[in-house]
Amino acid sequence: MKIVVIGATGTIGQAVVKELAPRHDIVKVGKTSGDFTLDITQEKQIHGLFKQIGPFDALISATGSAHFAPFEEMTYASYQIGLQDKLMGQINLVLIGRDYINEKGSFTLTSGSLAYDPTRCGTSASMVNGAIDSFVRAAAIEMPKEIRINSVCPTVITESLPTYGPFFRGFESVPVKRVALAYSKSVESLQTGQVYRIN
Amino acid sequence: MKIVVIGATGTIGQAVVKELAPRHDIVKVGKTSGDFTLDITQEKQIHGLFKQIGPFDALISATGSAHFAPFEEMTYASYQIGLQDKLMGQINLVLIGRDYINEKGSFTLTSGSLAYDPTRCGTSASMVNGAIDSFVRAAAIEMPKEIRINSVCPTVITESLPTYGPFFRGFESVPVKRVALAYSKSVESLQTGQVYRIN
Repeated sequence: MKIVVIGATGTIGQAVVKELAPRHDIVKVGKTSGDFTLDITQEKQIHGLFKQIGPFDALISATGSAHFAPFEEMTYASYQIGLQDKLMGQINLVLIGRDYINEKGSFTLTSGSLAYDPTRCGTSASMVNGAIDSFVRAAAIEMPKEIRINSVCPTVITESLPTYGPFFRGFESVPVKRVALAYSKSVESLQTGQVYRIN
Repeated sequence: MKIVVIGATGTIGQAVVKELAPRHDIVKVGKTSGDFTLDITQEKQIHGLFKQIGPFDALISATGSAHFAPFEEMTYASYQIGLQDKLMGQINLVLIGRDYINEKGSFTLTSGSLAYDPTRCGTSASMVNGAIDSFVRAAAIEMPKEIRINSVCPTVITESLPTYGPFFRGFESVPVKRVALAYSKSVESLQTGQVYRIN
């Protein structure tokens, strides 16, 4: 399969590429490096990317940011960051990508367990993650061309503890290798509308 | 208690007022009628409303719209309607209202079962409802002044079947009186961070 990995240079993206590269043709897309670069909030860039890449069988998105801050400091504007980037950036990949992806292709988005298991400073990430999972459940039943769509919803990743650890005291982390398996399941199985929670 | 009901003239809002009015002081707010009118997407209007009303003990939001259309017709712009209105409109009420609400007050938002039980044309509503429920879980643990926050997540309401029935064939509807009870539980109990699913 020809698989486009958006966020290929991140912690999850690298593990996904390692898992899938031995048996698939991987197109690596990063924000600043990779085979191609892309800002997922820019619709024109997304169209441009897909035109360059040509038809593909699967798109994996392991990217998107949201603003972490104490709830008392969060404003309307701070929530817009996550809504426009991690949420609508990933949805953009689907809305635009559905015209470029092959029949029976698959989309795999990334949410996160904060949707169900909140932590300090995480109200925006929680909001966005819950939105992604619910979108995936709904879009799956209306997808054209027998396209499938799932999300991977990991808790904090062991390899990311140096950065995120302070927000996740007491949370059991998961090795990124386990998280990467869920992307493989999404792409290489026939399931759709699933939220793969990796705890 | 002094309870502000936003969306007081809608199907759910009227039932909530009927349930709570016998034992509380209700301030009815509607989009075009009620004691006060409000567009929840306008932050200045929300500030103005709270200044006029004065301190209150509970805010119930039973309002907010999203765009219903087949997924193939949905665009970036169509998702913005639900994100700015039903999602950020309700979140605005919390972000601004937290400065006006009394200590130990409560916020109750409205999501909907499409977050978990999708139907045709509902990808935007699903997305927004999932976002609201996850926001509530996260905001509850960071609320200042011992303020509580919950969401009510009903499936299609029996009284709304004339309008929404065609989107919900085979779904078991719930009488609005049952839905109204969940708002009472949210306001009059001590629970927080709960998503009251009414199926």
